[in-house]
Amino acid sequence: MRDQELTLIGRNPVLEAFRSGKTIDRLFIQAGLKDGPISTILREAKKAGVKAEFVQKSRLDEISEGSNHQGAVAYLASFRYYTVDEILNYAKEKGEDPFIFVLDGIEDPHNLGAMIRTANLAGAHGVIIRERRAAGLTATVAKTSAGALEYTRVAKVSNIAGTIDTLKKQGLWFVCADMGGESMYKLNLTGPIGLVIGNEGEGVSRLVREKCDMVASIPMKGDIDSLNASVACGVLAYEIVRQRLMK
Amino acid sequence: MRDQELTLIGRNPVLEAFRSGKTIDRLFIQAGLKDGPISTILREAKKAGVKAEFVQKSRLDEISEGSNHQGAVAYLASFRYYTVDEILNYAKEKGEDPFIFVLDGIEDPHNLGAMIRTANLAGAHGVIIRERRAAGLTATVAKTSAGALEYTRVAKVSNIAGTIDTLKKQGLWFVCADMGGESMYKLNLTGPIGLVIGNEGEGVSRLVREKCDMVASIPMKGDIDSLNASVACGVLAYEIVRQRLMK
Repeated sequence: MRDQELTLIGRNPVLEAFRSGKTIDRLFIQAGLKDGPISTILREAKKAGVKAEFVQKSRLDEISEGSNHQGAVAYLASFRYYTVDEILNYAKEKGEDPFIFVLDGIEDPHNLGAMIRTANLAGAHGVIIRERRAAGLTATVAKTSAGALEYTRVAKVSNIAGTIDTLKKQGLWFVCADMGGESMYKLNLTGPIGLVIGNEGEGVSRLVREKCDMVASIPMKGDIDSLNASVACGVLAYEIVRQRLMK
Repeated sequence: MRDQELTLIGRNPVLEAFRSGKTIDRLFIQAGLKDGPISTILREAKKAGVKAEFVQKSRLDEISEGSNHQGAVAYLASFRYYTVDEILNYAKEKGEDPFIFVLDGIEDPHNLGAMIRTANLAGAHGVIIRERRAAGLTATVAKTSAGALEYTRVAKVSNIAGTIDTLKKQGLWFVCADMGGESMYKLNLTGPIGLVIGNEGEGVSRLVREKCDMVASIPMKGDIDSLNASVACGVLAYEIVRQRLMK
């Protein structure tokens, strides 16, 4: 359930938001529309680095709850995004080895909020999230983060695998949570590290998993497959905290 | 949002459920009503060990979404509850030191579901929840537990502190999560153990905290107060798992 004030409905509100430099989280355009005003919105979106999602009219009707959307709806980000460099610089300022959460497609805003809360308390320097098919920073995320979003640097990138490559060159090691990995207790998780958590249903994507230096598994004794994504993230983050404290 | 089929609205459905031996999770009665049929429901509830919650008519109107509730609404439990003894016996059958989650007033069904999921995967033998002012086993909990509820023994007790006393006599030690405790890494969490997690907003109640042998704190570096309750539960549960594995 989105905050109404953060949903922009109709061509003018959407266009105005882009022109005034507001951070747009997601842009929905009715599939098939190609007239002048829609083209203008798409041009502004491109300038702002926002990729439009082309959806059926019925989807837009649903999002706008009956208001006249004219084929264009956008979600305003409720907080500003940082850059990956700002996250690295923050670690440097603190004189600490970088510790970054990399979220490869978390879709549930409650999970995203809980993870940002965990990042803050575990002493991570920031959180990197994926641009497409993932929850962005909305009012629900802010609420679920219990205030942590105000203190935690979150960057949004279009390409998680590429970002991992860049960060590896800066000395970070990457560990992802996945089945079939080494027990997290046996891995060396100290030093500059990126903790990669995958999508709730599908886990870490293949390409991203291949980029990781280590695959960590959480020991599981039970009858089901996996922990809740934000719980798994917390358990792994605190194994990193423990190893850093013991060092 | 409750499953409609699990909400019983009106005097007859509620009374029938009690008489047919169904497990009722919560019973709401309109405050001030004292007529014959209501007294009969209250008598049946008492027999079944269910405490009625007396609420304003407006609350009942809301729960029943406009249906004619006649002053009585009940939530059916969607799963059967186990007894604390059944949980202990299960540990014994497995030849393991008991490991039990004790949830002192978790209100959010998503948190309860995630904790039951964690209990299953961390190898806990069961989960004890509080009868009053706490989420019970509903369809939402079942769903959030991702199937774990079918494999995990959950007992509901009226008095958490009293249950702790009883279990202490059976050799269990109790650790609760709270601020101002000893770092969890410094505590000995091996052996027969009960992990106590408090309410989302208020934490562990004073009386229950006093019953605990140890108060564990999760190291926190951030700007906010506490982790999400199910994340905190996961982090502590896995510290117990780690210590048991290392032993």
